[in-house]
Amino acid sequence: MTAETLCIGTEILLGNIVNTNAAYLAAEYAKLGISSYYQTVVGDNAERIKECVSTALGRSDLLVISGGLGPTQDDITKEVVSEMLGRKMNIDETSLKNIKLFFDRRGKKMSANNKRQAMIPEGARIIDNNNGLAPGVLINLSGKEAAKFGKSAKDAPMILMLPGPPAELTAMWESQVAGILQKYTGQVIYSAMVKVCGRAESEVAEILDDLISSKSEVTVAPYAKTGEVHLRITASAEDEKSAKKLVKPLVKEIKNRLGDSVYTTQEETSLEQAVVELLLANELTVTTAESCTGGLIAGRLINVPGVSEIFKSGYITYSNKAKRKIIGVKRKSLEKYGAVSAQVVKEMAEGAAFYSKADVAVAVSGIAGPDGGTPEKPVGLVYIAVNVCGQVTVKDYHFNGNRAKVRNSAVASALILMRQCILEYYSRLTFGDKVNE
Amino acid sequence: MTAETLCIGTEILLGNIVNTNAAYLAAEYAKLGISSYYQTVVGDNAERIKECVSTALGRSDLLVISGGLGPTQDDITKEVVSEMLGRKMNIDETSLKNIKLFFDRRGKKMSANNKRQAMIPEGARIIDNNNGLAPGVLINLSGKEAAKFGKSAKDAPMILMLPGPPAELTAMWESQVAGILQKYTGQVIYSAMVKVCGRAESEVAEILDDLISSKSEVTVAPYAKTGEVHLRITASAEDEKSAKKLVKPLVKEIKNRLGDSVYTTQEETSLEQAVVELLLANELTVTTAESCTGGLIAGRLINVPGVSEIFKSGYITYSNKAKRKIIGVKRKSLEKYGAVSAQVVKEMAEGAAFYSKADVAVAVSGIAGPDGGTPEKPVGLVYIAVNVCGQVTVKDYHFNGNRAKVRNSAVASALILMRQCILEYYSRLTFGDKVNE
Repeated sequence: MTAETLCIGTEILLGNIVNTNAAYLAAEYAKLGISSYYQTVVGDNAERIKECVSTALGRSDLLVISGGLGPTQDDITKEVVSEMLGRKMNIDETSLKNIKLFFDRRGKKMSANNKRQAMIPEGARIIDNNNGLAPGVLINLSGKEAAKFGKSAKDAPMILMLPGPPAELTAMWESQVAGILQKYTGQVIYSAMVKVCGRAESEVAEILDDLISSKSEVTVAPYAKTGEVHLRITASAEDEKSAKKLVKPLVKEIKNRLGDSVYTTQEETSLEQAVVELLLANELTVTTAESCTGGLIAGRLINVPGVSEIFKSGYITYSNKAKRKIIGVKRKSLEKYGAVSAQVVKEMAEGAAFYSKADVAVAVSGIAGPDGGTPEKPVGLVYIAVNVCGQVTVKDYHFNGNRAKVRNSAVASALILMRQCILEYYSRLTFGDKVNE
Repeated sequence: MTAETLCIGTEILLGNIVNTNAAYLAAEYAKLGISSYYQTVVGDNAERIKECVSTALGRSDLLVISGGLGPTQDDITKEVVSEMLGRKMNIDETSLKNIKLFFDRRGKKMSANNKRQAMIPEGARIIDNNNGLAPGVLINLSGKEAAKFGKSAKDAPMILMLPGPPAELTAMWESQVAGILQKYTGQVIYSAMVKVCGRAESEVAEILDDLISSKSEVTVAPYAKTGEVHLRITASAEDEKSAKKLVKPLVKEIKNRLGDSVYTTQEETSLEQAVVELLLANELTVTTAESCTGGLIAGRLINVPGVSEIFKSGYITYSNKAKRKIIGVKRKSLEKYGAVSAQVVKEMAEGAAFYSKADVAVAVSGIAGPDGGTPEKPVGLVYIAVNVCGQVTVKDYHFNGNRAKVRNSAVASALILMRQCILEYYSRLTFGDKVNE
């Protein structure tokens, strides 16, 4: 079964709102094993809506339309669809009663416009709206109607009309629509996630080239994020068990090829969460000493619930004086090498661990721009040091982009280097060595 | 001139990401006076991309395609468009050099895949990418090419291909594309921005009701952000002068009605920038003492270039011990009132100012969740204290939402309270009083 989404609303075309409905519906299709190849947005204009509805019905089994069910003159979805199909519109008394009740409860009078919201195309199935006024509408096209769009009676498409406000749409979907659609789909899609850090998208793509470009029933799709590549592995089958069986060997193969760069295979686990879990597993406390990233590394770590067990304090040492006074960077080092240098960032990681008594310290100093760059130390140069139980690793990075992008790249790289240094620290220990016990 | 957006990416069709590019582009078209009637999303599939490109070129003057310029086999935008137009693809040496340089700087080897990113359709204009590898491409269709899509030579459409990552797309648009397109549009749209903080959207909407719902040629559109409401005032005319003349009186009226809640009328000024500018103007240094926000307030302040003059150091005191040892919160206060209390957050703001010698200190302690809430102190309770030259203001807040939402709300509220306290501090001074001199 294929579905496509048509969102109706001039406010989306003006960029006033982001189209979260399309993303929500897309994820819901995937859950139900429904493939989706197109999403369209069109304004509150009858001719253009007709054009889009017609195109969609010709190529998809299910057209989900969101928006245009409101009470204003602009809201014309049901009218346009009814006209295209040649169906009459009738008042649905139950919906009308609900709308009246809504106004009565608020001590307000129902306007004539609201009556339009209870008008339903003949023969349609009504989907109650428990969070708003406009009911949803589901139409199974007849064979004759299907023929208008080049479809046979056997392949007659469906049209589902949902209200535009996201809260109404999602509630209606969850409580009623998902159940209705499940009966139509035989297929189940199963997908797994492999999250990779510290490797460029192109590098990952090259290592997995045969898997990504393979035309097999299992697809591998890479998505780049700052410092990360997320790989989605997807297969569809008659039941979840069979689909899982197709996906699992690929996840294993990808993990084998990418090794330690894979930080999780959990959909909901973020990079910072993986780092925090690694710290927790090894009973390591952590601190941060940040200059150009100014608190953002700590900010990401502290986004992980339960971090309080291992994160006690962090330092934002933006000035040279703060670096000296708060975490004991040597005046001589600052004078000789400058604040943005391997030596200073090393001393920051040492001092932060010393003063906070943390096992692990990460320190960052860099030139985020737009000013402050020199030929020797250009904007984008960032030093990161990680101190794991006294063993300090320092790396230099060269990031592109504006101030925000340089800082975000530095934050991601700091988390990645922390993870790498902790893993290496423990891989170097021979059997019998135990730390923190 | 009409433009339409075609976003290419299976990850959008799977609902993995929300299509913010379409919203960004839509708002940018509006600014340039370009009408837009359609947005489409399609996956990484050559046939379906061709179908969408063909439809779009037949009905719009400008087709903006985002995505599919990456290094992987999935990225086929340029190849498909070139094939449709019958243009060859050539290596662009400058783009190739930039890509090589990117890898050289990182001490990495460029993969063969990345070379594809420097392949450009013959006769196209190249738009440099300063934030990533894939250059943008602008093609003016020839008369012969236009005819394929039912257009005359006079109405030959343009195709603009932009990279999918939002940071790259927006940077490229701002630095280059907007300027190029402005030359093609005759109408000028002028819009002004009024940014409001510390008032609910519904409150602002009520105060400005007559202006927002007026059907005049000038529109006032409110957009809610965390802790803020942004008002866009827009008019279009033949020239900028006439459009400005329509907009200016409304900006003045809105400022009159909303008073000090308006923190800027500059498009590019963020709330943190307004706070930093206020600090700079009054020669006040600033520090932060953060618990549940864990560095995010400092992180936002440090996003402002030039902040180094007034921000020297900040503290992340997540544990009770850190609150005591680093910024001198009293053990007794922690025991008696708890870490999340007016008293402790006051002492944090006092201690942070004392130890950092800063004029202004902001302190936050709260329960971000998901755990740690009690009936008396539920998840979402956050105390914020602002210390301006020894005068400390404490406020309690009750935020809704998950951990990330509570923390973001706390960060915004802290910035707003800082601004308010500094303004009040100076408004209380009578003539002749001077601070910090």
